[in-house]
Amino acid sequence: MIVTLRKEATEEEVEKLFAFIRDAGYEPRLVKGESKSIVELIGSGDLTPDDLLKFACTEKVHQIQKPYKRISLEGDRKPITINVKGRIIGGEKLIVFIGPCAVESYEQTDGIAKLISEYPVNDQIGGYILRGGAFKPRTSPYAFEGLGEEGLKILREVGDKYGFPIVTEVMSANDVPLVEKYTDIHQVGTRNFQNFKLLDALGEVKKPVLLKRGMSGTIQEFLLAAERIVARGNPNVILCLRGIRTFNDAYRNDVDVADVVRLKQLTTLPVVFDPSHSTGNRDAVIPVSMGAVAMGIDGLLVDLHTNPEEALVDGPQALWPTQGKAFIESINIIKKAQLEAKKYYITAEEARQQS
Amino acid sequence: MIVTLRKEATEEEVEKLFAFIRDAGYEPRLVKGESKSIVELIGSGDLTPDDLLKFACTEKVHQIQKPYKRISLEGDRKPITINVKGRIIGGEKLIVFIGPCAVESYEQTDGIAKLISEYPVNDQIGGYILRGGAFKPRTSPYAFEGLGEEGLKILREVGDKYGFPIVTEVMSANDVPLVEKYTDIHQVGTRNFQNFKLLDALGEVKKPVLLKRGMSGTIQEFLLAAERIVARGNPNVILCLRGIRTFNDAYRNDVDVADVVRLKQLTTLPVVFDPSHSTGNRDAVIPVSMGAVAMGIDGLLVDLHTNPEEALVDGPQALWPTQGKAFIESINIIKKAQLEAKKYYITAEEARQQS
Amino acid sequence: MIVTLRKEATEEEVEKLFAFIRDAGYEPRLVKGESKSIVELIGSGDLTPDDLLKFACTEKVHQIQKPYKRISLEGDRKPITINVKGRIIGGEKLIVFIGPCAVESYEQTDGIAKLISEYPVNDQIGGYILRGGAFKPRTSPYAFEGLGEEGLKILREVGDKYGFPIVTEVMSANDVPLVEKYTDIHQVGTRNFQNFKLLDALGEVKKPVLLKRGMSGTIQEFLLAAERIVARGNPNVILCLRGIRTFNDAYRNDVDVADVVRLKQLTTLPVVFDPSHSTGNRDAVIPVSMGAVAMGIDGLLVDLHTNPEEALVDGPQALWPTQGKAFIESINIIKKAQLEAKKYYITAEEARQQS
Amino acid sequence: MIVTLRKEATEEEVEKLFAFIRDAGYEPRLVKGESKSIVELIGSGDLTPDDLLKFACTEKVHQIQKPYKRISLEGDRKPITINVKGRIIGGEKLIVFIGPCAVESYEQTDGIAKLISEYPVNDQIGGYILRGGAFKPRTSPYAFEGLGEEGLKILREVGDKYGFPIVTEVMSANDVPLVEKYTDIHQVGTRNFQNFKLLDALGEVKKPVLLKRGMSGTIQEFLLAAERIVARGNPNVILCLRGIRTFNDAYRNDVDVADVVRLKQLTTLPVVFDPSHSTGNRDAVIPVSMGAVAMGIDGLLVDLHTNPEEALVDGPQALWPTQGKAFIESINIIKKAQLEAKKYYITAEEARQQS
Repeated sequence: MIVTLRKEATEEEVEKLFAFIRDAGYEPRLVKGESKSIVELIGSGDLTPDDLLKFACTEKVHQIQKPYKRISLEGDRKPITINVKGRIIGGEKLIVFIGPCAVESYEQTDGIAKLISEYPVNDQIGGYILRGGAFKPRTSPYAFEGLGEEGLKILREVGDKYGFPIVTEVMSANDVPLVEKYTDIHQVGTRNFQNFKLLDALGEVKKPVLLKRGMSGTIQEFLLAAERIVARGNPNVILCLRGIRTFNDAYRNDVDVADVVRLKQLTTLPVVFDPSHSTGNRDAVIPVSMGAVAMGIDGLLVDLHTNPEEALVDGPQALWPTQGKAFIESINIIKKAQLEAKKYYITAEEARQQS
Repeated sequence: MIVTLRKEATEEEVEKLFAFIRDAGYEPRLVKGESKSIVELIGSGDLTPDDLLKFACTEKVHQIQKPYKRISLEGDRKPITINVKGRIIGGEKLIVFIGPCAVESYEQTDGIAKLISEYPVNDQIGGYILRGGAFKPRTSPYAFEGLGEEGLKILREVGDKYGFPIVTEVMSANDVPLVEKYTDIHQVGTRNFQNFKLLDALGEVKKPVLLKRGMSGTIQEFLLAAERIVARGNPNVILCLRGIRTFNDAYRNDVDVADVVRLKQLTTLPVVFDPSHSTGNRDAVIPVSMGAVAMGIDGLLVDLHTNPEEALVDGPQALWPTQGKAFIESINIIKKAQLEAKKYYITAEEARQQS
Repeated sequence: MIVTLRKEATEEEVEKLFAFIRDAGYEPRLVKGESKSIVELIGSGDLTPDDLLKFACTEKVHQIQKPYKRISLEGDRKPITINVKGRIIGGEKLIVFIGPCAVESYEQTDGIAKLISEYPVNDQIGGYILRGGAFKPRTSPYAFEGLGEEGLKILREVGDKYGFPIVTEVMSANDVPLVEKYTDIHQVGTRNFQNFKLLDALGEVKKPVLLKRGMSGTIQEFLLAAERIVARGNPNVILCLRGIRTFNDAYRNDVDVADVVRLKQLTTLPVVFDPSHSTGNRDAVIPVSMGAVAMGIDGLLVDLHTNPEEALVDGPQALWPTQGKAFIESINIIKKAQLEAKKYYITAEEARQQS
Repeated sequence: MIVTLRKEATEEEVEKLFAFIRDAGYEPRLVKGESKSIVELIGSGDLTPDDLLKFACTEKVHQIQKPYKRISLEGDRKPITINVKGRIIGGEKLIVFIGPCAVESYEQTDGIAKLISEYPVNDQIGGYILRGGAFKPRTSPYAFEGLGEEGLKILREVGDKYGFPIVTEVMSANDVPLVEKYTDIHQVGTRNFQNFKLLDALGEVKKPVLLKRGMSGTIQEFLLAAERIVARGNPNVILCLRGIRTFNDAYRNDVDVADVVRLKQLTTLPVVFDPSHSTGNRDAVIPVSMGAVAMGIDGLLVDLHTNPEEALVDGPQALWPTQGKAFIESINIIKKAQLEAKKYYITAEEARQQS
């Protein structure tokens, strides 16, 4: 980190800062400028900008290194893959997380899983993971909130019947052991992305975590939330883009799908995308997903329903069965093209060296 | 609610929608327009826009009534007050929630409370509530996270010594019984404002809840989160503005203090404001608080420290002791003026009738 | 439009509103609800919500029809194409707008155009339009602001030499005649998207307009800005997405590329995308462009430079020559796939009818 | 400025950067860190971060000094005041800019000015400036756009009759000479805050400029727009906060009134606030204005109408005559209190020295 000092800073104030920096295990180095001086912190430790901002002589703090150490691509780290019963998330192939938004009944879930069981597995699509919520966070206190453990049982049973791993949302630290009993992947919803008690609890389980970006989460906050789970002991975190909250009213959320490109520049973790919640509009799901695949997404989270008009939750965004098939065809074609196009990719650094 | 129908809607589709509306306890009324037709829902029930959007014939849904029924000022409802050991929140006088961001030790907390014990109680300032965090949500997984139950004990002990009620943050449904044992008011942090498990648990306790607005929370979402606590059985919710997340980089957060005026137009609940977290800048706390008081805020949440340079959490925003005194003087003067100015207030409706 | 009436509205107030509505050429229809009444406006005219909001009895106004009449897909309108010297914008093939951010000299522009002259024209890529700024809007008053008319001449000369149509930015109504003399397409920058004097002037010229979305422009404002040009007499407007201003710090701007899908649902106009200004990061340009093509974009606006390290404007985002080639290869491959995948597309309405 | 170097940067690349820095009149100083090295630029010149970002060896650029040199409070600069025919903007007293949103007729303008002529001038309120638009920017191409020069004449005539200076909007560089003939202050609207041709033209006139913040303008962009006018030769710029565009739907705009406190920490220029356009809600104008005054605003821009129900533009936000009086009473009372409270203000730096 670099600290810009206030012009009026006294020597005594700066000494106080230096002592603090040394106590924290760094070596401070003063660089005098014409109008302002700066202090560089040499070494590494756990200081955050706030620790330095509180000193009277500090004007501003500039961060030089990424604060998410374990999941940063800095240094020699390589992207990781996560293997969920044979589905490799973060590899060459797409993984599709698909199912109803909420588990409503055995029949509903079974009907949807049956549709999925007919979808292809090939060189582009590596497999399917059945999704469905048993605990549903709802903004209105008067809306349907899921079947609870009954829903978990249904999802597990249907997943096993068709051979699909399952993913479902866990809403509090308290529920982690219960959900761990049934699920293959824990999903953390957008409203809980900084529920630190929940993240800490998930740092101690064995199963991977699919972490949705908070509606107002910056890229750094998103990565720090993932870092927390990893730092607590669980290395298998999947990042999920799902739209953010801004003034942009094109869709229900501002669609942040292009951020997959940025995340891939920064982190070792796989990145997936949820076109259904991002847009809230089933007619947008197919083209927006095609875009996500072309940009290099590792997987897609999609709502599918045998009859969206009867869905208890988020009906306007669920795909109809024939749309589901068109969705699979479309992403398959684009994934093939993306793998081919990828070979031509060249970074600015490589381009400069060739010029 | 009003449903705009798609132009292409078939009679069969509309009948399906009508049947659904009737099943939900409303009477649908069709109004044919030249280019489009609309359906008005007569009566009241629990349908949300999503329930209607999923139908094929629906183009758009317009909400006519507020979905937060219990805390809306619609109808004949009056603003409520909340009495916490004699401090009346939502009445004529300001209540000041003040103390360290985090409880660090008995000495630190006692030193700060001693300062507060010398502040005036008068016709403008109705009293003080000692604040301090024992459980601290932190973005970085490597930062200090509070003393836990030890911190609760210290806060309680110091509060009792000086005769202050206390307020402290509760971070999960699981911790509610523990915190309830010590605190006078439960604080819900911005990252938990849609932690529905926590809100539901707080709906079942006796003590009031101070609910901070989520960083990306719309006014309606904020009120629905409060409605949830009230609907679950706890009528005593205090709304707290604390800055939101937008592109605006004037301060750490985009300062949403003016929204107190809007909230007062919409809800029966008291509204307080946190200038320390909103701005993250101690030199801004006094003038921004003066503004909040002039706009009619019911209380202020402020960070105070005997030595901010040694604060373990959020040092850059805590007031120095002499600033604390200036803060009290300033809001006292403005509150007096606000009470006087208020008498001249006249709504557009009243103005129109007089013209 | 639909007006929700205040509960307290008097008969006299409502009559005043009705008279106003009738004067404006609509027929008001009153629908009494249990708690509130609404008024529907039958017919069509030029009233805006503000016209109705100012009445004492009005609580809220809901818009039913789109206010951008000439460019809306409502009714039987079909998407248009724009032919610029044989390059068809809005047709089946991609059009690539490419060149330096700013025209710096004849040599620089010629060197870049030479690179482009070697790019392929085929079933996926319909052609190239040479771009370059002669008038450069700059946030800092101390930065390079373009060569002015000298720059226009260079761009025209180089365009003619290689057979490329050209596009360049016009910054004020006053400059329109000058720019019209040289350019094939007028570009309106993001900071001018609501410079109404400029839009009005461009409504009266013959050449097409490429209109960039304002940094804080909603979809409706964007379409109303285009509608203004069309309403003033120039039907040939190309919409250009280029990133918006929100809290999202993944890139220089929040990348709004997915909004192409929404615009295609709403308007008859072609839609292009600028990956260079959206991201401000040359390593992101290729994958983000691939995404745009997969989502159905009609064209791309890209910065290319023979030596980005020497660019006078926006160097960090310009592609290196070898990246330029990789860019063309990549979008070509994805466009082919997109045309194939498009055949499978099915709307929710079609899906429902088949089920 | 400080440049963080990429880890992979070669010596040759760094030398290239150093040569460039020296050419621009700075001295580069290299500071080697354990993981990364940085370069500090000693001296001063006109380089912007973009100039340095385009080099291959650059990872990030940190700005140390403010890029708005002429209007920054850094160094020994003091806040300025602007004298408009005896009204001192930026002094101890409030200046109120008040009148109709649009000049509709002589009678309308005269009626409103007559109301204002009865308002008090005293130790709190230093005077009134009559406002009214002759050129109205409108989002919809189908709305009323002002009377043009006829409107300017009316405003001038009525201003002179009652002895009020006037302020009116100028929409393009082309119109500057015409508007300069009539007005006392040029107003730049939010949609034109980065219309650089207009700002440049206003840098060359004698009359002061009231510059509204752009809907998506950061504080730095806002100050750079003002700096541009000053750098071109006109030192008299008044900054005007008027709400920004974010997700926050409490009011028509996100009310940025608290940013006055930040601007006062950064710039020498006076700062005023427009509660009418910020909120779009006349019942909010009085309390929000009271807040602005308490936070130290130098002036207020308010819409007043003899009959808002008949206003041609922005009727929903204009005050009724009796509200106008209440507005003046209220801000008068709060201003008195603010002047008294201000004496107690103490910065963190002063507080620290006393502790």
